[in-house]
Amino acid sequence: MHNYLLNHIKKYVAITPDDEEIITRYFQFIDVKKKTHLFTEGQKCNYNYFVCQGCLRLYFIKENGQEQIIQFGIDNWWITDYMNFEQHKPSNLYLQTIEPSIVAAITYSQQEELYITVPAFERYIRIITQKAYAATQRRMQFFFDLSGEEKYHHFNNAFPGFVQRIPQYMLASYLGFTPEFLSKIRAKQG
Amino acid sequence: MHNYLLNHIKKYVAITPDDEEIITRYFQFIDVKKKTHLFTEGQKCNYNYFVCQGCLRLYFIKENGQEQIIQFGIDNWWITDYMNFEQHKPSNLYLQTIEPSIVAAITYSQQEELYITVPAFERYIRIITQKAYAATQRRMQFFFDLSGEEKYHHFNNAFPGFVQRIPQYMLASYLGFTPEFLSKIRAKQG
Repeated sequence: MHNYLLNHIKKYVAITPDDEEIITRYFQFIDVKKKTHLFTEGQKCNYNYFVCQGCLRLYFIKENGQEQIIQFGIDNWWITDYMNFEQHKPSNLYLQTIEPSIVAAITYSQQEELYITVPAFERYIRIITQKAYAATQRRMQFFFDLSGEEKYHHFNNAFPGFVQRIPQYMLASYLGFTPEFLSKIRAKQG
Repeated sequence: MHNYLLNHIKKYVAITPDDEEIITRYFQFIDVKKKTHLFTEGQKCNYNYFVCQGCLRLYFIKENGQEQIIQFGIDNWWITDYMNFEQHKPSNLYLQTIEPSIVAAITYSQQEELYITVPAFERYIRIITQKAYAATQRRMQFFFDLSGEEKYHHFNNAFPGFVQRIPQYMLASYLGFTPEFLSKIRAKQG
């Protein structure tokens, strides 16, 4: 199980077998059934999650009762409510598995400790956070620039295969339009 | 000039006088006049910028010719087109000063080198990138959740004083609505 995490770390930084052992000890590896909430609104989000395998969604419930997905987490992505994770405050988001998933969970204080014990881990986190931030900047641009249909095609091209994995109403929520609109776009493709 | 940068770094990590000297040597400190482009669409964005003082906007031009601001950079913020900075590709964004500004600029390879020379600098970048990423996650939520009027008030509360510093049409662009709509909201406040 821990190989998913270690392999991802080794894509970005060099670590020794000793580092591997230390890193593995800091994480809880958890099998999570489909549709399980890792935290819900009002709960503290005590963990940062690395998705070894599976698919999760981070969402909130809008005033009108609609679910709005702000992020998906698939294999090799990190996901949590970062502001509340850092500030130890109750979350205003929900994190839920869409598929049966394996996640590696680490608490805030463990993560801080691991940065010191294994500096290569801190470098790895620096690198992947920079990549995630860059991607969010780009997403913000697409969000403003693309039509609904273009957003769908962009997402489809950027994450081939992913579109088949998630329920269509969730994809519509993430892209910011109605399931009906998504059906229309897909029907056009024939 | 370099004290702006060093003071910000020292808010997050401990650095020695030697570190301070090394860090300062890696940056170019530049006085930039109002309305100057640091890069435009099609140019490589060779630098990551720390805003010592002033205000910048990162924007792109939509298909309909409208400018869309995706980010502001004010005192103590880092700003660039991160994906293209990292991939050494031409940018599809524009970075421009709104006020006379002082920026500290560092190239990608210098930044990579500085991570090695001064590990505390890498820690500082890890911390502030995590904070920026967390803020973007929250911004994404507000974007979907709040009405236009709520967005304005939220922005006003989150960055008191900032709203007075920038032209109203730019704030409207950032919040994703028309200058006319913004005037209406402001008129309501009396």
